[in-house]
Amino acid sequence: MTDVEIGRAKRGRVAYSFDDVSLVPSRRTRDPKLVSLAWKIDAYTFEHPVIAAPMDSVVSPQSAATFGAAGGLAVLNLEGVWTRYAEPAGLLAEIAKLSPKDATSRLQQIYAEPIKPELIAQRIAEMREAGYTVAGSLSPQRTAKFAKQAIDAGVDIFVIRGTTVSAEHVSDGDSALNLKEFIYELDVPVIVGGCATYTAALHLMRTGAAGVLVGFGGGAAHTTRNVLGVRVPMASAVADVAAARRDYLDESGGRYVSVIADGSMGSSGDVAKAVALGADAVLVGSPFARATDAPGQGRHWGLEATHSDLPRGELVELGTVGTLTEILNGPSHVADGTMNIVGALRRAMATCGYSDLKEFQRCEVVVNP
Amino acid sequence: MTDVEIGRAKRGRVAYSFDDVSLVPSRRTRDPKLVSLAWKIDAYTFEHPVIAAPMDSVVSPQSAATFGAAGGLAVLNLEGVWTRYAEPAGLLAEIAKLSPKDATSRLQQIYAEPIKPELIAQRIAEMREAGYTVAGSLSPQRTAKFAKQAIDAGVDIFVIRGTTVSAEHVSDGDSALNLKEFIYELDVPVIVGGCATYTAALHLMRTGAAGVLVGFGGGAAHTTRNVLGVRVPMASAVADVAAARRDYLDESGGRYVSVIADGSMGSSGDVAKAVALGADAVLVGSPFARATDAPGQGRHWGLEATHSDLPRGELVELGTVGTLTEILNGPSHVADGTMNIVGALRRAMATCGYSDLKEFQRCEVVVNP
Amino acid sequence: MTDVEIGRAKRGRVAYSFDDVSLVPSRRTRDPKLVSLAWKIDAYTFEHPVIAAPMDSVVSPQSAATFGAAGGLAVLNLEGVWTRYAEPAGLLAEIAKLSPKDATSRLQQIYAEPIKPELIAQRIAEMREAGYTVAGSLSPQRTAKFAKQAIDAGVDIFVIRGTTVSAEHVSDGDSALNLKEFIYELDVPVIVGGCATYTAALHLMRTGAAGVLVGFGGGAAHTTRNVLGVRVPMASAVADVAAARRDYLDESGGRYVSVIADGSMGSSGDVAKAVALGADAVLVGSPFARATDAPGQGRHWGLEATHSDLPRGELVELGTVGTLTEILNGPSHVADGTMNIVGALRRAMATCGYSDLKEFQRCEVVVNP
Amino acid sequence: MTDVEIGRAKRGRVAYSFDDVSLVPSRRTRDPKLVSLAWKIDAYTFEHPVIAAPMDSVVSPQSAATFGAAGGLAVLNLEGVWTRYAEPAGLLAEIAKLSPKDATSRLQQIYAEPIKPELIAQRIAEMREAGYTVAGSLSPQRTAKFAKQAIDAGVDIFVIRGTTVSAEHVSDGDSALNLKEFIYELDVPVIVGGCATYTAALHLMRTGAAGVLVGFGGGAAHTTRNVLGVRVPMASAVADVAAARRDYLDESGGRYVSVIADGSMGSSGDVAKAVALGADAVLVGSPFARATDAPGQGRHWGLEATHSDLPRGELVELGTVGTLTEILNGPSHVADGTMNIVGALRRAMATCGYSDLKEFQRCEVVVNP
Repeated sequence: MTDVEIGRAKRGRVAYSFDDVSLVPSRRTRDPKLVSLAWKIDAYTFEHPVIAAPMDSVVSPQSAATFGAAGGLAVLNLEGVWTRYAEPAGLLAEIAKLSPKDATSRLQQIYAEPIKPELIAQRIAEMREAGYTVAGSLSPQRTAKFAKQAIDAGVDIFVIRGTTVSAEHVSDGDSALNLKEFIYELDVPVIVGGCATYTAALHLMRTGAAGVLVGFGGGAAHTTRNVLGVRVPMASAVADVAAARRDYLDESGGRYVSVIADGSMGSSGDVAKAVALGADAVLVGSPFARATDAPGQGRHWGLEATHSDLPRGELVELGTVGTLTEILNGPSHVADGTMNIVGALRRAMATCGYSDLKEFQRCEVVVNP
Repeated sequence: MTDVEIGRAKRGRVAYSFDDVSLVPSRRTRDPKLVSLAWKIDAYTFEHPVIAAPMDSVVSPQSAATFGAAGGLAVLNLEGVWTRYAEPAGLLAEIAKLSPKDATSRLQQIYAEPIKPELIAQRIAEMREAGYTVAGSLSPQRTAKFAKQAIDAGVDIFVIRGTTVSAEHVSDGDSALNLKEFIYELDVPVIVGGCATYTAALHLMRTGAAGVLVGFGGGAAHTTRNVLGVRVPMASAVADVAAARRDYLDESGGRYVSVIADGSMGSSGDVAKAVALGADAVLVGSPFARATDAPGQGRHWGLEATHSDLPRGELVELGTVGTLTEILNGPSHVADGTMNIVGALRRAMATCGYSDLKEFQRCEVVVNP
Repeated sequence: MTDVEIGRAKRGRVAYSFDDVSLVPSRRTRDPKLVSLAWKIDAYTFEHPVIAAPMDSVVSPQSAATFGAAGGLAVLNLEGVWTRYAEPAGLLAEIAKLSPKDATSRLQQIYAEPIKPELIAQRIAEMREAGYTVAGSLSPQRTAKFAKQAIDAGVDIFVIRGTTVSAEHVSDGDSALNLKEFIYELDVPVIVGGCATYTAALHLMRTGAAGVLVGFGGGAAHTTRNVLGVRVPMASAVADVAAARRDYLDESGGRYVSVIADGSMGSSGDVAKAVALGADAVLVGSPFARATDAPGQGRHWGLEATHSDLPRGELVELGTVGTLTEILNGPSHVADGTMNIVGALRRAMATCGYSDLKEFQRCEVVVNP
Repeated sequence: MTDVEIGRAKRGRVAYSFDDVSLVPSRRTRDPKLVSLAWKIDAYTFEHPVIAAPMDSVVSPQSAATFGAAGGLAVLNLEGVWTRYAEPAGLLAEIAKLSPKDATSRLQQIYAEPIKPELIAQRIAEMREAGYTVAGSLSPQRTAKFAKQAIDAGVDIFVIRGTTVSAEHVSDGDSALNLKEFIYELDVPVIVGGCATYTAALHLMRTGAAGVLVGFGGGAAHTTRNVLGVRVPMASAVADVAAARRDYLDESGGRYVSVIADGSMGSSGDVAKAVALGADAVLVGSPFARATDAPGQGRHWGLEATHSDLPRGELVELGTVGTLTEILNGPSHVADGTMNIVGALRRAMATCGYSDLKEFQRCEVVVNP
């Protein structure tokens, strides 16, 4: 990237967000029916690359089945209300009515309830019954403690997800997770992240992960920038990690690790940009929280909003726009990129002239000054 | 253009919109009376280069005559309400009162009505009667099916217009339009687009088109950027396509193809910028939808807003400001660039010191950081 | 300046506005009492370089005396209400109460009244009586017709001011002004502009002008950018014209032409920036329209807002903040840069460590990205 | 820094604010418990580097003790209400209820009351009783007159703070402060500033100061940019002055001068950025004015807002969010970076993988275009 001098003692690279770039059609166009959106990770294949993010406002055991039926993958957060409470429906209904002023304090209370190992097993069992690929996520801090329950209960794909996950976590206890050993011993494919740079991603790929998450997982409800000063301009992060995938493919003699953009995608246009910049798949949150049949019922929040002494996210009111299936596959009756995300990705690829996701990663982009 | 590294695996060119640039007067000034705005395409000449865009909010058979009388050209959309309904007046009146919330759904219904070939013939006949140059447009998808009716009915200039039109459309059926053959066999000049890059434009010029449209045709009512992630920063697109015109002029041994900016021109200042950046003419929509005698009666929408499962535009409320003739030729009684567009272009050229459109294309511009 | 490629057929220089830059203190600071703001043009000296702009909202024969008593210069617009009406007080009171919606139409009517040569003489006589330096302005279009009256009546400094004034105006009649001859034959010093580039300014300097105006004269009430697409980013324009002054000083063997920034200065901070970028003096409008004793009584408009068929400015409501003397010399009781403009300039120079205007032109500036 | 041409006669460096940059995690992460925030200046050590700014809305003798108990340092403004009035509580209560319209005029009145030398002694004595490190500040203009009282009363750390303080102040009287002599003769460590450039900082370091303040001290309530045109983009200023610290360390044979960012830090994210860009400590104002137990009770203003004839700041209404201790050390129940500033800094360092402040100064940053 372009390197600028901020001051005499510090230089920095210029980094771009999705809003800073736009896609440019090639000299060809293509019939949308001739475009393939198929995505594959390990032994699992999906009709499209749009994954529902592990957030309580989006994925419940029930909604996971809806996503599966619509050809995609949903990841259940194994540290959310579904593993803390046997019957969280009432709490979700309460959250849907919280006033913004009191929201953070009440979320802190609700998520102070301990995680129950037996509920992890139960939720995964519920998802298995639906017959679709089952994915669950834990934070790196809790993976060592709870991963066994998830694996034993039959999770197909395991996700380790935190604001920032590194291959080298410095800790003073024995509790720290050795990612490489953990993944090596596991029978199921692991997706791990977020990360934001070429180097961090390359180290995560070397742990044996099947996929890496790029970003911090959250746009609408995320305030990490204000609280910590840390931010990932997503266009640059995705394009950087795509380079790590290419270099690791060479270094490993052919192991292809999926690059999954995670966060800052509030519209279907952002999803198309993520793929064009190098992502194999996308983890999407807030657009699905706008579904009438999503657990959030128009409200959206992440785990970082529930932290006991340093919350870094907010409960946001998004309102509802249609069903999960409509938001994913249409038809749309709004023109702001919040419905028919898969159809919009297909049409973006057709308009720009590309036939599959891998080819679309070569799409030309322009940068807005 | 300047090329920047977005991330290690992706570079992008910096591209500019009309808002990013401004015109700079030369060391001469000129009496506005000594400025010529004449524009010519094929055998047709016009007093000025401001063309009314094929949108139902702007061009009806009646308003086309008003534009003709005012020295310009208007293009009727042959896929709009005028060829779907024998008597669309009531529908236009209904649209003028739709609440924004319900607008997209209702537009989807109205435009679900099939196009009637006989109405295409009838509308063109109505326009011929007025005695001005007659122009009509179809999308590339429907050109093969309906173009004959338009030509037979006596259209003078035929326009093929879509969000993105390429010289190489990949399709699996026989229905795809071979632009080059189609244009070769036609007796009337063809204007085709939108396109946004040097290469795409050069290929369109090689099909034999008399003019190419630069852009996506739509600013105010257009949401392609949010929905597809695709966007054309117009200043760069026009300046790129102007280079294709120059290179094609050389390659073809002297065939001059008109470059027509299409979209993102909400004020007379944008029109002046489009010409200064290299356009020969401009296709203008939203400013005319603000006319008291425009079919939209202060509302504005494009065909992309009526798409059945992925609308990419909105019905916008612009309000009214004066008659079509006043908006085009003044006098103006507002100071925001929405009235007396032709007069403003003339004065911009006089202030900057240029005598005709071709000379004004050399005008110096500055870029705002 | 930095030159960027906008598209293959057009390059443009990056140009900066006052908002894009800030002043940087040097390693010295200085007691404000040790700072001199004296400004001199031809044989006239002033306590400070802040000139009241020839706008009916700011300068009347009465308010000109107030500016003179406060150590500065005021320019009366000889094409405004004071030379069209014998008793304009009632009209000014009416303008102060116009609703924004109807304002442009009513201004067009008011300024349709012809200019009376005898009123030009009368107003200048009124100003002479007050005993301060008398300055009046005409547009280049009307200079040939009315300048004699102004000169004969005893104007000390004559200003030719238009949106863009060039040394080479192309016209078909005999009415066009030959600036060089006109200035040569005149006994009084002439200030002429606006201009915006090095080359245009150099040509104006060669006409024999004592000062050149940089800019279009108007920020708050000006809409030239929307209407014509023409805009002068002032920081770059002032720094460019300052280079023309230096080069003309050499070329002419020592004739120093005052560079006077005209427009886009809404706060005292902008005034300080104008000088630091190279201006010798500033022509200020809108801040003075906020005076309780200004003719505009809180309203502000320029002649360009009154144009009969292409108005390029608006009547804006600014409200009042204090007397003309307080706005110029303080004391201030607001903290937004709209009062005590001279005191703020003095303090800016002291804070940055400079002792007079000429030295302050060397002040370091930074550019905001 | 990057140098651009603004116009032919002026170049400027591109300078960045905190908002223009973001922190990037390294390839390591770290347990927050393993992060040290310890900061040391001269013989004084503190648990964290967050200093309460000498503003009447933030530091009173009482609140200084609260800051001390929370492990940090507070600086009392020795020119504020506490040294002008024996019993300022009523005035603070009045300020907390002033309407914004009348605020500046009333502040000008309140601060017109002379400073009482005996109150300086009394306030420092009150602070000494609390048992924490005692710091007080004066402006350079008043240091010569009142510093003795402060030193004699037992101030531990003396701060000389103005909008811009230079090592070379040009004055015509004998009253001007010779910083080098003053500091040499003093027994207590001196912190001096603000400054904004490498050169100005280097000269301040050569006066013998223990610390230099970078910036103008004030964001929320500061309007220096509008009034004087002077502005310090803080990211560049901190990185520039950090280079001066490094070069002075070499030049002086090992004297390490603390670089203390002062102003423009409205959130904990800005505090983290300041350290990552090279600051050793930060002087924070507005976030503490939001404390229920701060003297400002939700209102915030600086001395520059009280200037008799050129106020350069405003009284701003911030509202309250929690106690001083909560704002400093948490727990937080909001997610906007205004609470648990120390905890957020600790977590930012852990997330990015650094173990102490000095190491964190090497953190990678990206620049937003």
